[in-house]
Amino acid sequence: MGTTTDTRPFFLDCDTGIDDALALAYLLGAGANLVGIGSVSGNTSAAQGALNTQNLLALSGHAGIPVALGHHDAQARPYGGGAPHVHGNNGIGEVQLPDAGLELAPESAPEMLVRLARAHAGELRVIAIGPLTNIAAALRLDPELPSLVRELTIMGGAALAPGNITAAAEANIHNDPEAAAEVFAADWEIVLVPLDVTMNHVLEEHDLQTLAASEAPAVQAVAAMLGYYFDFYKSVFGRRCSVMHDPLAAAIAIGKVRPTSAPYARVVVDATDGPGRGQTICDLRGRYKGHPKPDGAHCRVVLAATEDAIGEIVRGTLALADASLVVLP
Amino acid sequence: MGTTTDTRPFFLDCDTGIDDALALAYLLGAGANLVGIGSVSGNTSAAQGALNTQNLLALSGHAGIPVALGHHDAQARPYGGGAPHVHGNNGIGEVQLPDAGLELAPESAPEMLVRLARAHAGELRVIAIGPLTNIAAALRLDPELPSLVRELTIMGGAALAPGNITAAAEANIHNDPEAAAEVFAADWEIVLVPLDVTMNHVLEEHDLQTLAASEAPAVQAVAAMLGYYFDFYKSVFGRRCSVMHDPLAAAIAIGKVRPTSAPYARVVVDATDGPGRGQTICDLRGRYKGHPKPDGAHCRVVLAATEDAIGEIVRGTLALADASLVVLP
Repeated sequence: MGTTTDTRPFFLDCDTGIDDALALAYLLGAGANLVGIGSVSGNTSAAQGALNTQNLLALSGHAGIPVALGHHDAQARPYGGGAPHVHGNNGIGEVQLPDAGLELAPESAPEMLVRLARAHAGELRVIAIGPLTNIAAALRLDPELPSLVRELTIMGGAALAPGNITAAAEANIHNDPEAAAEVFAADWEIVLVPLDVTMNHVLEEHDLQTLAASEAPAVQAVAAMLGYYFDFYKSVFGRRCSVMHDPLAAAIAIGKVRPTSAPYARVVVDATDGPGRGQTICDLRGRYKGHPKPDGAHCRVVLAATEDAIGEIVRGTLALADASLVVLP
Repeated sequence: MGTTTDTRPFFLDCDTGIDDALALAYLLGAGANLVGIGSVSGNTSAAQGALNTQNLLALSGHAGIPVALGHHDAQARPYGGGAPHVHGNNGIGEVQLPDAGLELAPESAPEMLVRLARAHAGELRVIAIGPLTNIAAALRLDPELPSLVRELTIMGGAALAPGNITAAAEANIHNDPEAAAEVFAADWEIVLVPLDVTMNHVLEEHDLQTLAASEAPAVQAVAAMLGYYFDFYKSVFGRRCSVMHDPLAAAIAIGKVRPTSAPYARVVVDATDGPGRGQTICDLRGRYKGHPKPDGAHCRVVLAATEDAIGEIVRGTLALADASLVVLP
């Protein structure tokens, strides 16, 4: 991490995934100090996601960031096969990254998270952009985790917006509602970045061309992945484009994109087998009187963010070109 | 009904209730042809609601409209005692209406609905502004009901807005989710008027004063009830005012207020015992491409209505002053 001036330690938990790949490239380009990365099944399997993450790290000149394998299956149900129609069979839009042959960390993702939270007690910030299986497992390993972690930013859920995997549920939470229920019930400072805000920040064709014009191989690779993602989002928006779920959460977590509306709310996850399974029920009834902070609420729900979020994500990612030229320790 | 020029037949099912009372006064003032009224437990008990309805009809000069008693208990749970903190112990804000001593119809509310639907086959429009217990019971009595009823307008639910009885659920639907699930599953043309639109149309102090200045005893009585309702809504909005749940649904049902956004959506009611119990899950995922009508959808979800809805409700209600002076058959 010789390139970073931001020394705050971050742990990233991801299911790489096209928008995870862009989030990772963005975090690296923006100079975030990633002290470890966990992989979990979601967009693709935990193992495939770890491989994608490692190969992208290597292509970015950041092969030194340790990657730990996390849970393959969700708490209550086996891994469902990912979302190949969105992310491709290999999770990254069929793009073939050079195989860096990196080894996985000798610990699981939940173990890594617990170790790093203890090593950086009170300072570690966690960015969770996949299902919350690993985070819940880490909570079980170390119930003191919430007091050790400074902030947990989660991409997931839908507060007052429609879901994306069902009418009510967003994919990350729906992939493991039982784990999510545990995570939201624990008493830590959570910043939830739900579809309410991610669906309003759209990367357009010209942004994609800007990324594709980068000289950095990692950025070129991500741009190629995004082409696949754009095809899927045509079914959602009626045009080729893509929303920025994971990169937006990453940008908010590192403080480069500012939420303009993020009320505290009590959040409960529907872990029933009913039609609302996987929904994040955010109690926003206070909105008619300016969202007073409810007693005991410890989750901010990001409903809107500064308009130039896409610009920040593009600029941050393009900065990877320079970063990868720096000799690493 | 000598005062009406609108001959379309309407059946009203209600749990009177302060805003039900205003909806009734509005419908009468606006000249709607109410051929029957059913009473159901909700804001208050079915019996109390029927009494409130009868006495308000009499005070309005409309004692001839038949009122039928409907279900006291919800399908799966006994009547929970209403909402005295919102509507008062008698459902109408402790206002004492003159007791007209009217008799109830010799049939139940579901039986009346079925009879009227057959008598006005293809023409009867139903306005349901309470829990859907009676409507579901009528469906069971006559499974052909959906083909006999022209349109069913329901005040209830929350599509993309917070609930009001829980974080996710609106009171009418939450009072009998099992009944609501049956009603939405049946294949009739439904217009759902949820909190998404009702919470955005607020009756303010000056509107209340306009109503209170009416010379019509029924309008004066409703204005007195609204004073109680205003006190409750101070806890929601931070000021004395009230939203117009039931009157807005009534005004939309008779075509005097126009929805400006009412996409067709598949609607499923959460009848689990989970945190989403009583929620109306409206599949609005099509909103990012202009809400194409989903195959098989038969429910329009009103998300917005013309801005002057409150003005229409006030004017329509004030017209009751004249209407009640006309000699009835």
